Amino acid sequence: MPELRGPVEIVGTGLLGTSIGLACRRAGIEVLLTDTSAEHVRIASGLGAGRPRQEDDRPEVVVVAVPPDHLGEVIAEALRATDAVVTDVGSVKSGPVTFVEGQPRVRRYVGSHPMAGSERSGPLAASASLFDGRPWAITPHSFSDPDAVELVEELVRVCGAVPVWLTPDEHDRAVARTSHVPHLLSSLVAARLADGPENHLALSGQGVRDVTRVAAGDPRLYGQIVSANSDAVLDLLGEVRAELDRVIDAVERGDRGALQSILEQGVAGTQAIPGKHGGPVRPMRSVWVSVPDHPGELARLLADSVASEVNIEDIRIDHDPGRPVGLVELVVEERRAEHLLSSLESRGWATHR
Amino acid sequence: MPELRGPVEIVGTGLLGTSIGLACRRAGIEVLLTDTSAEHVRIASGLGAGRPRQEDDRPEVVVVAVPPDHLGEVIAEALRATDAVVTDVGSVKSGPVTFVEGQPRVRRYVGSHPMAGSERSGPLAASASLFDGRPWAITPHSFSDPDAVELVEELVRVCGAVPVWLTPDEHDRAVARTSHVPHLLSSLVAARLADGPENHLALSGQGVRDVTRVAAGDPRLYGQIVSANSDAVLDLLGEVRAELDRVIDAVERGDRGALQSILEQGVAGTQAIPGKHGGPVRPMRSVWVSVPDHPGELARLLADSVASEVNIEDIRIDHDPGRPVGLVELVVEERRAEHLLSSLESRGWATHR
Repeated sequence: MPELRGPVEIVGTGLLGTSIGLACRRAGIEVLLTDTSAEHVRIASGLGAGRPRQEDDRPEVVVVAVPPDHLGEVIAEALRATDAVVTDVGSVKSGPVTFVEGQPRVRRYVGSHPMAGSERSGPLAASASLFDGRPWAITPHSFSDPDAVELVEELVRVCGAVPVWLTPDEHDRAVARTSHVPHLLSSLVAARLADGPENHLALSGQGVRDVTRVAAGDPRLYGQIVSANSDAVLDLLGEVRAELDRVIDAVERGDRGALQSILEQGVAGTQAIPGKHGGPVRPMRSVWVSVPDHPGELARLLADSVASEVNIEDIRIDHDPGRPVGLVELVVEERRAEHLLSSLESRGWATHR
Repeated sequence: MPELRGPVEIVGTGLLGTSIGLACRRAGIEVLLTDTSAEHVRIASGLGAGRPRQEDDRPEVVVVAVPPDHLGEVIAEALRATDAVVTDVGSVKSGPVTFVEGQPRVRRYVGSHPMAGSERSGPLAASASLFDGRPWAITPHSFSDPDAVELVEELVRVCGAVPVWLTPDEHDRAVARTSHVPHLLSSLVAARLADGPENHLALSGQGVRDVTRVAAGDPRLYGQIVSANSDAVLDLLGEVRAELDRVIDAVERGDRGALQSILEQGVAGTQAIPGKHGGPVRPMRSVWVSVPDHPGELARLLADSVASEVNIEDIRIDHDPGRPVGLVELVVEERRAEHLLSSLESRGWATHR
């Protein structure tokens, strides 16, 4: 894997950007800071997240950490103005790809998305340990250069996070389910509290505090995020609405069996959430696949792996520029390896058993 | 205030019952344990929550801590079989009242409900500190005897909890808002995880874990709770459904303003939750009210206070059995005292300014 030498440029010194700067500095990597707000750069710099970028700096990697509405244009500008590998940390991944695809420099762009955040925002809330042990999606598009993908993976590891490999579209459907829809439902529960008589709220216990915690997040930011992922969000909201109707019907009819079975699906859902970092170690196995060394093949392999619904825990790419075929190692849970192998073979990939 | 001398009998040695036993034992009060499961009594007793009840024991207070479906009958039986003050810790308060009202012994019954729990259950999850600083609703009905009310308040304080005064009906509407509906929505979010591709769930962060934590609770228990409070729950679920339709409509139409205003209501809701125990101390003021010393008057005062939407932080009852009128002290936030005074006066109460 290529070593991340730096400098790393951070464009947008909010919570995420500043935290990435702090994590890179912790690893001794030079960090350059850019923001439309000079005050944010001053604060981030004062916290030790890096120094203001100068005209003639030459970053190795640019991390775009601006609000969702501006991601596409800032990524395109970073690709134009530098020779760096460019990534972003936006919550929705198919939008920026649409914005930059077709540009000759697009091979240097690899999207990513750390699953870390806070209901607080701004550089003052930043921390070098914000990403420790947290999932961080890496979402190569069909033209991403393997070297660029590996450099972004190295950045993720420098930040202490756990890479999760998904295509941009799969990522967006995944976060609709694990983040955007939970946020919207949390907001609907919280809004009922705002409507309620003040003395009723004295009965608020830990449960409702947990359910509504994320609803305290910045409405402007989450409005942008949800809007950018509207298709995937609407699909799931439709399901939630149908299930809500089933709940209302069950309570109205006094149908205990129906109500209990809905609650049991909820229990099953809480059990489906993977154990936190530090949970029991699951046995892993490597699956080797030959990949033609030209644009789009790595992304196609990733898309086919994702389609098999196997979680790729790690990717290692062995590509000798002189050879027409590279070897890619996919690390997956042992119990899922056979399924991945046969799924990839059925899609025409040459695996090495 | 009458001192709680004990013995306290706990009927139902699950999580709540055993925790109350432990808290009373911590205060040196004798505790008697009863359960249909001899094993639960053995475990609770082994944990130090009390001793098995004997035939000739004479409890001062009986705490009924059985599943919602059995509350009414067990409360009625405790009133019949003992001379004790009887309370229960059920999550819904109007049902049991309906069950026992009209009985001559009903003056000895005062409902209550600690806002503490866990997604775990059973005596092994119990703790003497489960209620420390937590709200604990006390819900006298119109025939509760003031002495009985005060003894239950003393039990609440022995457990380290903060009394919250509400009528049974108001309590049920309050917990629909702060507990039952949040639980159901949490279950709907969690159920979507059970449906999702396994590799998508790798992106689960702290947010979705928080939103879905309560959904891990026992489906049978929560099915009983929601069913017992169906009217209040259905009212709120209707509101949630209407708001969900507004969210879907806003996302479909790409109406950022509408979406953002819905999210802003959520933020307002999170801010409406009262500060946790240990938050800033708010200045308090006492409001004094004359209360005729006959059945139903204390409950009527409480109902009228609740109707004014002021949170009663404490009640002290000064009643000399020889006098036809008692004096009740209601402790409320200073900024709400004027409002409470004029609200009570407009309903015909004699206040002392």
